[in-house]
Parts: sequence; structure tokens; C-alpha cells
Amino acid sequence: MALLILMPNRNTSDLASRLCILDSNIDLRVWPDEGEISEIEFIVTWNHPAGILGKYPNLKAIQSFGAGVDHILKDTDLPAGIPISRIVDKKLVRDLAEYVVAVILQQKRHLATYRDQQRKKTWQPIDMRQGKSVGIMGLGQIGSTIARRFVAMDFDVSGWDLLPKGISSVTCFASGQLDRFLSGADYIVCCLPLTPATTGILNAETFGQMKPEAYVINVGRGAQLIESDLLDAINSGHLSGACLDVFQTEPLPETSPLWDHPQITITPHIAGITDPDAVAGQIYDNYRRTIQGEELLHRINITLGF
Amino acid sequence: MALLILMPNRNTSDLASRLCILDSNIDLRVWPDEGEISEIEFIVTWNHPAGILGKYPNLKAIQSFGAGVDHILKDTDLPAGIPISRIVDKKLVRDLAEYVVAVILQQKRHLATYRDQQRKKTWQPIDMRQGKSVGIMGLGQIGSTIARRFVAMDFDVSGWDLLPKGISSVTCFASGQLDRFLSGADYIVCCLPLTPATTGILNAETFGQMKPEAYVINVGRGAQLIESDLLDAINSGHLSGACLDVFQTEPLPETSPLWDHPQITITPHIAGITDPDAVAGQIYDNYRRTIQGEELLHRINITLGF
Repeated sequence: MALLILMPNRNTSDLASRLCILDSNIDLRVWPDEGEISEIEFIVTWNHPAGILGKYPNLKAIQSFGAGVDHILKDTDLPAGIPISRIVDKKLVRDLAEYVVAVILQQKRHLATYRDQQRKKTWQPIDMRQGKSVGIMGLGQIGSTIARRFVAMDFDVSGWDLLPKGISSVTCFASGQLDRFLSGADYIVCCLPLTPATTGILNAETFGQMKPEAYVINVGRGAQLIESDLLDAINSGHLSGACLDVFQTEPLPETSPLWDHPQITITPHIAGITDPDAVAGQIYDNYRRTIQGEELLHRINITLGF
Repeated sequence: MALLILMPNRNTSDLASRLCILDSNIDLRVWPDEGEISEIEFIVTWNHPAGILGKYPNLKAIQSFGAGVDHILKDTDLPAGIPISRIVDKKLVRDLAEYVVAVILQQKRHLATYRDQQRKKTWQPIDMRQGKSVGIMGLGQIGSTIARRFVAMDFDVSGWDLLPKGISSVTCFASGQLDRFLSGADYIVCCLPLTPATTGILNAETFGQMKPEAYVINVGRGAQLIESDLLDAINSGHLSGACLDVFQTEPLPETSPLWDHPQITITPHIAGITDPDAVAGQIYDNYRRTIQGEELLHRINITLGF
């Protein structure tokens, strides 16, 4: 039984060496040097060429190299019935929550403006932003951790999710209540998985449903936010601004008007970085489970898309 | 029994009107129009002229207009035996904790550097700061709240206080263990009250006891930090930087070398602002307690200085 690393245009040597350290007997192949394809039963992938996954006759499991599986599910020729799993990394969850707390508090307390004032040697207190309701789109491990962080700091916290959720001190809205959810929050945080239902979910209509002066943070996926609609919603004065860590195209092209918009903060997809040790350990664990016929860890529901 | 507002060079009308709303029969005087001084039994003060407090023969209580009482205790002619109390404001505590969280996370996640990169349209991820131990000088209401915030975010938290303290998941050091405390933290937060023992406590010696690359945050009082020593400790490469909200002289003079130091962040004493409603309510409560011969709320220990 062989494990194939199928990650075009990525550095695969770190993962390969970590897997060899975990199991010196592992039959490891790195695409495109895949050898006899009938021996391949487990594939680790990121941005595979569409259609390729159907050519392995004995494939038993597909493992995403990250927290998202949208890059796998968008393949319309995905072989049916093969379980797919994703990485769930506690450190990534903590880092993402930390980033969102940093961004919202920075905004509430005007730290960027004070930094500009410092350059001019200007001593000028500014009233802090009064709103303290945070609305979180997506209440999985990441969203629920963000929610708990803000509850601990006495913010008013709400959340919206496709599935019914219950989190202490968090007002949870069901999938049909998106407009009600959006209209109540001063800060809207998107940490949804990318699925057909969430693609373009942050658009002119949903921006219009948000509170005047609301501030948007996207740490989900770039394809969830229509960048031109966001610019319109800010330039019209409806939204107060946004902080984006993910984009339709990454790295963000130099020609993007997002770069020099004074009310938009850009970070280069750094909110949460998967820890290589966590990745290798979980991948090896799922490989071992596949050999032993056990259920995969962090297996996704293909119908739901996450 | 009269209440005297004794606050030279401050706007006193807001406080006066709020006290009148709380009690329309109050005998309120505003310095220097103080009337018959033998009738004055309760004084609210901020930066009173030294020596003046001894001239009121029937004074029963002195109330600071803020969280600190250093402006009262520095008067060497303070009348003996008069109880002194301070303001304790939950919102101020929350705001200070929020500021410290914002500052440390901003630093850990390089948000200011990403902002500079954005101006240049540069997409360049930077490894986050690895250290995650926060050491808090002063574990009163403010310091213990800051400590709990960081415990909730999985930081390693320690504290140092003149008095023995116990806070869940926080390593507490006693007054004689300052050097051990200082040597263990990546971020040192000062939220001590200003007393003779804490004046100049952040100096060349204590900076030298801190970890290499430590980052200093001062939300205590400006007189606790020797600004020239801080500059030396940063310029020598020992400390990685500092964020200061309080200064030896406020507003910070334009001539100060702190303004344009790239590793120093300056905010104009905005970390915690006392809420006028909280102040007036607590002052009126203590005035009523004085009339009725009850113990003052938030009375300080004059020997300890806080």
C-alpha cells in the first residue's frame, strides 16, 4: 500500500521527510514520480490537476493538506465514494482566533490611526468605537473559538451557521436567518468553509443587510467575498472598512484597488498557518487508519462540503 | 456638610452637574469659590495645591477623582488620619485590559509591519513572534483582569505584586522576586500604582534583567519608567521595543526622542478613560457614606500607597 503526495507547484520535501521519520518503512511516492498506480491507496493533495484522482484503481482515501477541502471538491470528476479528510490543527485555530481578536481590537481602539498620528508627533485622543457586537459566520472549531474569545472580553457575540449550533453566551442564528444575523453586528467575521453555498456570500446584497458602519473581516476564503462589491459598500459610506487576509487571487495583484484603500487592511494570508508537525502527524495517522480499515480522522461530509 | 470639588485646571462642570442630578439638595462647592471652610467635610480632588488639604478643620474624607492617588499622597503636608479613597471603574478596567491585549497581539502578529508593507503593495508573510509569556507588574483589579484575558488565550502568564496574590493559572511572584519575574517574560506589562517604591521602577537595571528581545508596555504612570534608560535598552538591541501610553510629561513634548523611534509605539494616554457616570456615582456614594458614618468604598491604605 503506497501513499502518494500529489501537490503540484508545492514544496513536498518537508512533508516527505517528516513522514519518513514517522515511519521508515512507508512506501512513499511523490507525484509525478508515482510508480505503479494500482499500489496507491492513500493520496495527500493540494490543488491536484482536475480529473486525475479517478485514475487510481485502488484509492481508499483522499487527504487534504490543509483545513479546507474546496480545492478537492471543485473537481467535477472526483471519484465517488472515496472518503475525504482535512487537517484540524489546534494551533491554526488558536492563531486564527488571535488574529481576529487583534484586528478587531486594533480597529476598536484606533491603533493604526494612533500610529499615523505618532508619525506627525500628534497627541490627540480619539473616542474608541462604541459598538461591541461581533458576528461570526461559521461556527466550526475556528468560529466557535473566536466566539469564546470575545465572550471572555465582554463583547456581545452572535454566530451564523448552516448547521444548528449552541455555544454558551453566543446568540446562534440558523441558515435561514442570515439577514437578521447580519443586521445586528458591528464586526462581521467570515470563517466559513468554501462551498458552492458560501462562494460569493459576501456581496452587495449581504453587505447591504449589514449595520451601517459595520466592519468586515475575512479569514475564510477569497472566493467568498466579491471584492468590487466590498469597495462599493465602503465607498458609498455604508460599511466603515474591512480587513482581508484572503483574496480572489493570491498573492493580491499589484493592480488591485484594495491595496491603497485607506479603509481596507490587507495581510498576506497569515491569519492561520498550518503547523507542519501537526499536518504530518495527522496525515500519518489517517494513512495508518486506512491500512487498518479504521474510520478517518476529520472526515468531511461531501454533501455539505466541509 | 459640604462637598468641595478641588480640581485646579480641570473642567469641573460635568462632575458638578452630575452630582446635582444625583442629589438636588447637595451642598456643593467648587474651588476656589469654597465659602465657609469649616462646613467642608468631603473633598474630591485631582492635583490639589500642596498643603491646602490641611486647612479644612472638619474634613472627614478625601476622594481621588481617578484610579490613582499618587497626586494626593505626594503632598508632604497631607493631614493625618483622614481616609482617602479612589475610583474603581469596571469599564476602565475592561478598557485597559482590551488595550493591552490589542497591543501585544498587534506586536506578536506584526500588524503594524503589514500595514507598512500594504503601503508598498508588498505581499510578504512574516513569521509571528514565538514568545507567548506575558508578565504583569501589579495584580490589582486591572492587572488580574489582564492576566485572565491572556490565560484565556493560552498564553503563559506571570505576575508580580507587592502583596501576595493567587490567580488561577498565573505564576505569581512576591515583591522580593522581581528579577526572577522579569527574566521570564516576553512581554512585560506595567500597571502598578505610582508610589515611592514604584517610581522609576522601569530603569536600566530592571530593563537589563528582562529577557533579550522582551517588549515593554506601560499603562501605569509615566514616572514609573525612565525614558532615557528605555531608549538605551532598545538601542543596544537588548529589548525589542515598547508601547507607551503614559509619559513623564503629558502631552509628550514634540522634542521627545520617543516620538520617532521605530521600535516605540506611542498612544496619548487612552488605554483607560474613567467613565464620568461611574465617577459621579461612586463619589456620591462615598459622600453619602461619610454623612452616615460608614466605611468609604475603595479606601486606600496610606502606608502602602494604593
